[in-house]
Amino acid sequence: MRQATHQIFIATRGKGLYEFTREVEAWLAAQHVQTGLLTAFCQHTSASLVIQENADPDVVADLADYFQRLVPEDTQLYRHTAEGPDDMTSHIRSALTQTQLSIPIHVGRLALGTWQGIYLFEHRARSHRRGVVLHLLAD
Amino acid sequence: MRQATHQIFIATRGKGLYEFTREVEAWLAAQHVQTGLLTAFCQHTSASLVIQENADPDVVADLADYFQRLVPEDTQLYRHTAEGPDDMTSHIRSALTQTQLSIPIHVGRLALGTWQGIYLFEHRARSHRRGVVLHLLAD
Amino acid sequence: MRQATHQIFIATRGKGLYEFTREVEAWLAAQHVQTGLLTAFCQHTSASLVIQENADPDVVADLADYFQRLVPEDTQLYRHTAEGPDDMTSHIRSALTQTQLSIPIHVGRLALGTWQGIYLFEHRARSHRRGVVLHLLAD
Repeated sequence: MRQATHQIFIATRGKGLYEFTREVEAWLAAQHVQTGLLTAFCQHTSASLVIQENADPDVVADLADYFQRLVPEDTQLYRHTAEGPDDMTSHIRSALTQTQLSIPIHVGRLALGTWQGIYLFEHRARSHRRGVVLHLLAD
Repeated sequence: MRQATHQIFIATRGKGLYEFTREVEAWLAAQHVQTGLLTAFCQHTSASLVIQENADPDVVADLADYFQRLVPEDTQLYRHTAEGPDDMTSHIRSALTQTQLSIPIHVGRLALGTWQGIYLFEHRARSHRRGVVLHLLAD
Repeated sequence: MRQATHQIFIATRGKGLYEFTREVEAWLAAQHVQTGLLTAFCQHTSASLVIQENADPDVVADLADYFQRLVPEDTQLYRHTAEGPDDMTSHIRSALTQTQLSIPIHVGRLALGTWQGIYLFEHRARSHRRGVVLHLLAD
C-alpha cells in the first residue's frame, strides 16, 4: 500500500458548478490503482465540493439557483460584508455543502455512480483560481 | 495494513431515512479490525447519507418533514422536472446532506456515539435499490 | 505506512462555533507526518463539524445566526421536543453540516487553506463536552 498527494487548480468564472471529474481521473490513470480511496479537499471557504448529476446540465443550473434563494444576498443580514453581498453568503453555502469528498476505488475504478460527477461549487461572483488537494490511498 | 471494498444494496420504499448500521457492522465483524477507517459512498444523486440519532424514530420523521419544507416540490422553480416534482428536489437534498461518510474504527469498534446510526436518506417517492460502496482501511 | 487514533473533548458553552485546529495540530506535531490523511469524526447528532474562515470572527457569528433562521426553534413544527426547542433543530443542523471531515497532509502539513480553521458547531443551548475521534493515516 502507498499514498500520493497532488494539487490541482480550477479556474472559475463566477458562481456555479465546475466539473473536474476528468482532472481527477487523469491523475488516477497514471497510478494504476485496483483498490483505494481518493480524497478531494477544497482549500477555500467561499467555494465547496459536491457530487452531482452530470447528464443534464439543467441540474447544476437549478442547484445554483436554489442556493441563490436559500442564502439571500442581503447585506443587512450579515456583519461580514467587506467584500460585498456575495462574501458571507459564500461561507454559508460552503458550510451547507462539502469541503471534502472521499470516493472508494473499487475493482479498478472510481466507485462513482453512472451519472455522478465531481464538482467545484464556486460561490463568488468574480473569477477565482481554486486549489483542490487530492490524496490517494492505493494498493 | 490492508484495504477491502464491498458493495451493499438498500431497498427503499419512498422518501425517508433507512438505517443500515447493522449491514456495515456485519461486514466489519468478519474483518476483525482493531484500528481503521470505514468509508461509505452513495452511488446516487437522488439519495444521500446522514448520521442521525437512532434512539427515537421521531427524529428521522421530523428530519424528513423538514427537508420537505426546505426544498419545495414546486416544478415552476426548476428546469429539470422530467421525472416529476421529486426529481430536482432530490438532487438538492443530496447536495445539502452527504454523499460520503468516513468513520474511524477506534479500539476495535466503529467510533459511533451512543445514539448515532448510519442512514441512507431516500429523496424519491418511488421504490429504489440504492448502491452503497464500502471501503475499509484496516490494521 | 501506519495508523493512529485519538479522542479529544471540546467543552462548549452554548450555541456557536468552537475552533479546534490547534488541538488537531498538537496531536499531529508529535507524529512527524510527511504524507497522510487526518479524519475528524464528531460522536454526536446535536453538534457537527465545519471548516470555516478563522480570520474574521464575524464569519462564524453570521453563520450561527443564519442557521438560527434556517432551522426555526418552533416546537409546533417537530414531534421530537422532549429536551426543548433546541432539541430537534440540533439534529437538523447537524444533518445540514458535517459529522466527519478528512484533510490531506501534503508536504508535511495539513492542507488547510490560508484562512481555514476546523470548527465544532454546537447546536444546543446548554454546555456540553463533545467527543471528537481523530484518525490518522501516515507514511
